[in-house]
Amino acid sequence: MTAIVPFKNNDAKSRLSGIMNRREREEFALCMLRDVVNTLKESKVDEVLVMSTSLLDDDDFDILLNPEPLNEAVNEVLRKSERPLLIAMSDLALIRSWNVDEMISRKEDVVIAPGRRGGTNMLFLHEPSRFRSDYYGASFLDHIRIAEDRGLTLGVYDSFFASSDIDQEEDLVEVLIHNERESASFLRSMGVSLCFENGDVGVIRR
Amino acid sequence: MTAIVPFKNNDAKSRLSGIMNRREREEFALCMLRDVVNTLKESKVDEVLVMSTSLLDDDDFDILLNPEPLNEAVNEVLRKSERPLLIAMSDLALIRSWNVDEMISRKEDVVIAPGRRGGTNMLFLHEPSRFRSDYYGASFLDHIRIAEDRGLTLGVYDSFFASSDIDQEEDLVEVLIHNERESASFLRSMGVSLCFENGDVGVIRR
Repeated sequence: MTAIVPFKNNDAKSRLSGIMNRREREEFALCMLRDVVNTLKESKVDEVLVMSTSLLDDDDFDILLNPEPLNEAVNEVLRKSERPLLIAMSDLALIRSWNVDEMISRKEDVVIAPGRRGGTNMLFLHEPSRFRSDYYGASFLDHIRIAEDRGLTLGVYDSFFASSDIDQEEDLVEVLIHNERESASFLRSMGVSLCFENGDVGVIRR
Repeated sequence: MTAIVPFKNNDAKSRLSGIMNRREREEFALCMLRDVVNTLKESKVDEVLVMSTSLLDDDDFDILLNPEPLNEAVNEVLRKSERPLLIAMSDLALIRSWNVDEMISRKEDVVIAPGRRGGTNMLFLHEPSRFRSDYYGASFLDHIRIAEDRGLTLGVYDSFFASSDIDQEEDLVEVLIHNERESASFLRSMGVSLCFENGDVGVIRR
């Protein structure tokens, strides 16, 4: 089984601009990518490919270069895939290898791990060429519709860890609390820590 | 097995003030409470008690009246409980009965379903009187520490549905997409629907 991790490093994680400069954001995005790839490598997945829009300065990754936008790049892979395929976003800093194993043990044709705000954070396809991805907007609803239109059975994989894609400053709280790998260490090394105000939890950078 | 659902109806859900007036917020809070209680009743839980700061105008609930703040009220119950106990927040509009059954089948002394931003959304205690709750701030971390201090084994129940407490306007997206009960119908009846802007999903009220 192959897992594909789409990745774009150039000006990555722009919504974190309030707390990190561009180079830091790009480095943090690489940390999260490494965490996701290492988690996948510890799971029952056989092969992990990073589908990147540019070459990366890191020998640890097997790169599938594709300069196309996300949907076009993923759909090109789906069309050509003859075996089950997992697509996992590169900012799922909280996922554990058992999340991946649970996800790929599901029997439905299409299995979605929803992200917040209607997102699709992991997508497992038994027959990728029968599916088409549509990642913008409420992709969770779009993917359900596409599966129904094509007569494919659908499962939802319910996981807090898999639902937490890291985009905004408040999401860094989840990294500091629940990430057990490189991403949380990187944040701490930059002086980012939890802060508490009026019973709420946020992050602050010293 | 008993489940306790702490609830405060007076000026409920104040962070939704931008989209609902006070009466609507209190009614929405009651909708979510009913969804949570009905979900618990469909699970393997034997008894569901709503621990409320005031009497409620609804005969469907078994009320445990307690005007104390959350921690004091919960800790009073914990001290007196001689059987396993589940504490579930009243705004977990997404939980399914199988979430509850999975949670209460766990063997660790203390099982936490984390909420976002360090919250504790469900808490399952095999021996409640050995534990003490501390619900403010990063309660997930505090509850881990309390379990460790008391020599209790700890489990984390990983669920997107259980992690989604509904507090802010953006959380209504989750209700409209994933709630299958009364809360989503209530929002729709008020003219609240999903809206899409720059690939982002939010809510709008007509």
